[in-house]
Amino acid sequence: MAGCRPSVRFHCLATDPTTRARAGWLETPHGPIPTPVFMPVGTQGTVKGLTPRDLAAHGVQIVLANTYHLLLRPGPAVVAALGGLHRFMGWSGPILTDSGGFQVLSLATRCALDDNGVTFRSHLDGTLHRLTPEGAMAIQAALGSDIAMALDECPPYPADRLTVARAVERTQRWAERCRAAWRRPDQALFGIVQGGVYPDLRRQSVRGLVALDLPGYAIGGLSVGEPKSLTYAVLADVTAELPADRPRYLMGVGAPEDLVVGVALGVDMFDCVLPTRLGRHGTVFTPEGRQDLRRGRWRKVADPIDPACDCLACRRFSAGYLHHLFRSQEPLGPVLASLHNLRFLVRCLAEARAAIIAGRFRTFAQTFLERAGQNVAAALF
Amino acid sequence: MAGCRPSVRFHCLATDPTTRARAGWLETPHGPIPTPVFMPVGTQGTVKGLTPRDLAAHGVQIVLANTYHLLLRPGPAVVAALGGLHRFMGWSGPILTDSGGFQVLSLATRCALDDNGVTFRSHLDGTLHRLTPEGAMAIQAALGSDIAMALDECPPYPADRLTVARAVERTQRWAERCRAAWRRPDQALFGIVQGGVYPDLRRQSVRGLVALDLPGYAIGGLSVGEPKSLTYAVLADVTAELPADRPRYLMGVGAPEDLVVGVALGVDMFDCVLPTRLGRHGTVFTPEGRQDLRRGRWRKVADPIDPACDCLACRRFSAGYLHHLFRSQEPLGPVLASLHNLRFLVRCLAEARAAIIAGRFRTFAQTFLERAGQNVAAALF
Repeated sequence: MAGCRPSVRFHCLATDPTTRARAGWLETPHGPIPTPVFMPVGTQGTVKGLTPRDLAAHGVQIVLANTYHLLLRPGPAVVAALGGLHRFMGWSGPILTDSGGFQVLSLATRCALDDNGVTFRSHLDGTLHRLTPEGAMAIQAALGSDIAMALDECPPYPADRLTVARAVERTQRWAERCRAAWRRPDQALFGIVQGGVYPDLRRQSVRGLVALDLPGYAIGGLSVGEPKSLTYAVLADVTAELPADRPRYLMGVGAPEDLVVGVALGVDMFDCVLPTRLGRHGTVFTPEGRQDLRRGRWRKVADPIDPACDCLACRRFSAGYLHHLFRSQEPLGPVLASLHNLRFLVRCLAEARAAIIAGRFRTFAQTFLERAGQNVAAALF
Repeated sequence: MAGCRPSVRFHCLATDPTTRARAGWLETPHGPIPTPVFMPVGTQGTVKGLTPRDLAAHGVQIVLANTYHLLLRPGPAVVAALGGLHRFMGWSGPILTDSGGFQVLSLATRCALDDNGVTFRSHLDGTLHRLTPEGAMAIQAALGSDIAMALDECPPYPADRLTVARAVERTQRWAERCRAAWRRPDQALFGIVQGGVYPDLRRQSVRGLVALDLPGYAIGGLSVGEPKSLTYAVLADVTAELPADRPRYLMGVGAPEDLVVGVALGVDMFDCVLPTRLGRHGTVFTPEGRQDLRRGRWRKVADPIDPACDCLACRRFSAGYLHHLFRSQEPLGPVLASLHNLRFLVRCLAEARAAIIAGRFRTFAQTFLERAGQNVAAALF
């Protein structure tokens, strides 16, 4: 990238001998991040209901913010006037912004794609906007995230081969334009691999993007409705093609079991609204799977949700109290359950990382998946 | 009270020479509280959206919980099974519970008062309940608060003399029955002065309650719609009658200027939903009065709400970011604005206390009220 030493660099610390799992460090302008890492989603410049202090206290290392939402409100000029996204959010750690493309296609009304970008109406007030590769880069530059994502086209699932092939080609051209429009030496540009469930299109997408020599690569268009066995098969193909010296980011994946399988297949970064969205509605992760705190069985439970957990909800409150908060529609319920779920994923990946370094990741993953009642283990290990 | 040393005792540390303001300590089973003190309201066993840790970090010393709400959900038996209200809420400081009477009359549907108590239907599910003086004491004993309130009858405003006189008599008989039903040596019973805006009925109420030798006295039935000049006049009469060696608690008052005037008139304790309710809707206290953060003028303000404030919202975020959170209906907005408003009241009373001790309360109060644009000063000082 213009001959500069990239601002985001991946250092592999250890690889697991019997899977593709790897432990490393991701250097960013706002500090190093141990990988594998989960990134909570702060859609509108805030992880819903949680203070940056609570996030940091629960081991969160990097957060994601959505370019589409911040473009519409308050707008990149306001964020820049208020000191950039880090100061705006009060978050001094690294931030990754998406390009806005995926959200435009899923949230905006009446959007029209063409080779130069996408025109759409705001879901908030119906105003007309246009997002181009260059525009996506300019907005993300104004926001000042550590990692910017190239504008991509993510076709729906299922989609026929021709549609997906065209999306791969457009995604490649847009990645090239994003790279040409890149200006901030303190912001790294990641490309996004598309190709749906077609192995050869995925390979084509990987090779095209890798030729751009970007500091990191994301895998898009997975977990969009396809069967899980297909997700894992495509993921395995893609990570096998990606260069070992660049971070790999699996977009939109946040179920604990998918994180563990993703790590086994060589993924370093994940993001998803799942832990906070489930938490807001009273569902919490436990080692034995998900639990709905609104159910009557929790009413008199004096133990915490998970006695082994060190989150604020588990250290200080009974499951019965959490149940009461959700039954009473008290806003502290979503706060505590969100913190618990984030901490659960942070701990899961911290344990995975320690297991990789100690050379016992396979055992960790098998135990984790069996305890959660997931039988994906057999197919992958 | 049955010959025991009361569990809650007031120590006067200093009195202001030119007003009736006093600074002291309130000893409770869960620690001493500097007075004057503001008590945030945790209606359903939680101060809306705030963790106990955040409350403590912002200088909150004691919280209030509502017997009516906790009676209906989750019920005192569940709270007791989960270790009592302190453990239930995760709050290790002192707690005051109201008797439930005021909330029954204002929230329950189809309630019927008689000399033995009040029968009402739950506003949640329409189930039939009955609250008697003995029942209110039993529920508060199960909750395990540090301070329990006697069941009282608070007539609406305006109310004719006969109605108010009957409410005073009933409140007195119920206070006597609450005292007789008092069982927990680690829980103090406070009586509630009624009498509306009738000076002689207020005096009668004070004298009847003081004869019961209770560890503290609350002033009820004020700020229920009467003109503010009348509130202050009645309050001045009542505090003049109350014994100097017992804490005085003005119920349901939480506007900053009313706190300062209340302190000048000899009040030691206050509670109100105002700071958290205003905060949830985007209105914040400032030394110059209330401000609505949703207004467009805040959009690009890089300074905090109040540069002199040390709350989480002011230390870490711009007013522009708070504006964005409220415009985007993000739950972090209510959290931060509530913390700011609570901190504002905590600081206001901490400064009042320091001024009383230093013998300069009159100057503090006049400056505070003038800066807030309140002209109550002239009448009272």
